[in-house]
Amino acid sequence: MEHAVVMAGGSGTRFWPESRACRSKQFLDLTGSGPMIRETLLRLFPVVPPEQVWVVAGRKDAPHLSPRALGIPGANVLLEPQGKNTAPAVAYAVACIARRDPDAVVLAAPADHAIGNVPRFRAVIRKGLRLARETGRFVTLGVPPTHPATGYGYIERGKPFPGRVKGAFEVARFTEKPDLVTARRFLRTGRFDWNSGLFLFRADLFADRLARFLPEIDREIGKAFRGGRKGFDRRLRDAYRRMPSISVDYGILEKEKGILVLPANVGWSDLGTWRSLHEFLGSRGGNLVFGDVVLADCRDTFVRTDGGVVAVLGMDGVVVVRSGDAVLVCPRSRSEEVKRLAEEVRRRYPLLA
Amino acid sequence: MEHAVVMAGGSGTRFWPESRACRSKQFLDLTGSGPMIRETLLRLFPVVPPEQVWVVAGRKDAPHLSPRALGIPGANVLLEPQGKNTAPAVAYAVACIARRDPDAVVLAAPADHAIGNVPRFRAVIRKGLRLARETGRFVTLGVPPTHPATGYGYIERGKPFPGRVKGAFEVARFTEKPDLVTARRFLRTGRFDWNSGLFLFRADLFADRLARFLPEIDREIGKAFRGGRKGFDRRLRDAYRRMPSISVDYGILEKEKGILVLPANVGWSDLGTWRSLHEFLGSRGGNLVFGDVVLADCRDTFVRTDGGVVAVLGMDGVVVVRSGDAVLVCPRSRSEEVKRLAEEVRRRYPLLA
Repeated sequence: MEHAVVMAGGSGTRFWPESRACRSKQFLDLTGSGPMIRETLLRLFPVVPPEQVWVVAGRKDAPHLSPRALGIPGANVLLEPQGKNTAPAVAYAVACIARRDPDAVVLAAPADHAIGNVPRFRAVIRKGLRLARETGRFVTLGVPPTHPATGYGYIERGKPFPGRVKGAFEVARFTEKPDLVTARRFLRTGRFDWNSGLFLFRADLFADRLARFLPEIDREIGKAFRGGRKGFDRRLRDAYRRMPSISVDYGILEKEKGILVLPANVGWSDLGTWRSLHEFLGSRGGNLVFGDVVLADCRDTFVRTDGGVVAVLGMDGVVVVRSGDAVLVCPRSRSEEVKRLAEEVRRRYPLLA
Repeated sequence: MEHAVVMAGGSGTRFWPESRACRSKQFLDLTGSGPMIRETLLRLFPVVPPEQVWVVAGRKDAPHLSPRALGIPGANVLLEPQGKNTAPAVAYAVACIARRDPDAVVLAAPADHAIGNVPRFRAVIRKGLRLARETGRFVTLGVPPTHPATGYGYIERGKPFPGRVKGAFEVARFTEKPDLVTARRFLRTGRFDWNSGLFLFRADLFADRLARFLPEIDREIGKAFRGGRKGFDRRLRDAYRRMPSISVDYGILEKEKGILVLPANVGWSDLGTWRSLHEFLGSRGGNLVFGDVVLADCRDTFVRTDGGVVAVLGMDGVVVVRSGDAVLVCPRSRSEEVKRLAEEVRRRYPLLA
């Protein structure tokens, strides 16, 4: 059967001041249609029924993870004792899935992305699940790039992959986030897609590769699951303390041969920064405001307030966000750096950030 | 005897969001050393004793005008039923002063300016009071300009004025706020001073010129004062309803011959805008912050918050002010326009502005 693992362990400090230590990005309502994680789940339910959808998140985020609000069974909400990147998270979820359904095929997806074309997205996911089942390979979703973004990793397509499911390619290579010159070159070749961070696999394949490439994680998760319900929390805590912090990309996919990429022209955005949110929601060069805002003579400006009024005059390409007791002002083009700024705020004003 | 009239009727919407409908500029603590009006009074007390200092302000500002906080007798706080610019305000104060002290010589000063060199300021005021008494002329304080400001009126100096009090000049003419080209020309001639809005006169001179140039105001104030304490408030209200709204500059000084100007190199600033406050308090091109603020890679930026934290990244020449439930962001160079922006905010969010 098909399962989905939604990875909701991130913190998203680049959305400070909206995202705080006690409220991570995936639990924010950034687009105005509900918390991101809920949108992600609602997008999946027609493809993967709620009983087969799993959420992995940090224990500190438990207040945001009411199964009733998420629409999935309580047993499918997996709380990690601490964050150790995606490899332990997916390993934990796959262990749960495999015990219930050894033949499972799994979609792993971040909780915090946005999709412009949902029907087409669902069609791609269905195709990807079929492809992963039939080939027994890892399948990644590649997004045809619209501009030479430097904030994403890229996947280079190799040969078209023959088979019953059409449209897939062999992965020639994964790349790190490129500089602008490299990104432009990628686009000119026509062979590169953005790495969406969504990938699909059979549970038995993942288990096998985990044991081969990340034996420490395999061993620790295995130990936690041996011995039944009693003491599981303590054993899991011990396992997380001992496991390395590593991503699936780095720990498994970069070492694996024969990975496939399925191009997914679905209006994907990782919504990684205020700028990408502005671009996902707004028209090019236009202003976008949420809340009680007065703009005068502004261009390409994004303003968001959850209380009081924000008045902005004569600014071009600027982000202004007021959330609770904090205010952020920065150029759109530097919204990547908000992460560092938020860390500085946290250091200097631990009670306010 | 010497008296001072501090004109505190203005509203100062250019300091929005710090200044609000219910809290005018002269009652703000903009410089960090107390409300402006209090600084203005403390500056004067060594020259003009508190019993001879008068404050004229709007009735709506009464909550900010506790005589104990101001340090002057309750009878010296004159509340206007409505704002009608400076001519009625000074006429009202001079009528009070003349009844107590017909030989008075008076300094009229706005409540909302700043002085960098207070000892020198006091020396100039003493000199100006002597000059006004001995010559029986109006004396204005002219500020040697430091740059071609377009936000101030200018006074052109004529011939040096002979007499026992040295350093005064005849006024050749008053000018409106010039454009930049004109302001530059003014500076090149070396004959122009900024009009500080401070002026001095004998009470009998003012009474005479009021009767001559603004007979309506003279008549109405006269009627209010005839008939004693009983019914005074009502008569004053009627007088204010009927008087024209006009400044002393426009209604009297521009029509008067023989006005003198005393150059006052005292570090005067009208603190008319966020920009001029920044310039008065800060070093050229530097950042200036009040409150819990984190700046990263900013230049020439002014940030002020009365609560919560404000984080600003990568901005140049920008003003960010958070006050209560409102936030303002604009380029320093456009802080004159905040007045219009505040009016727009008031129109759209009457409860928030």
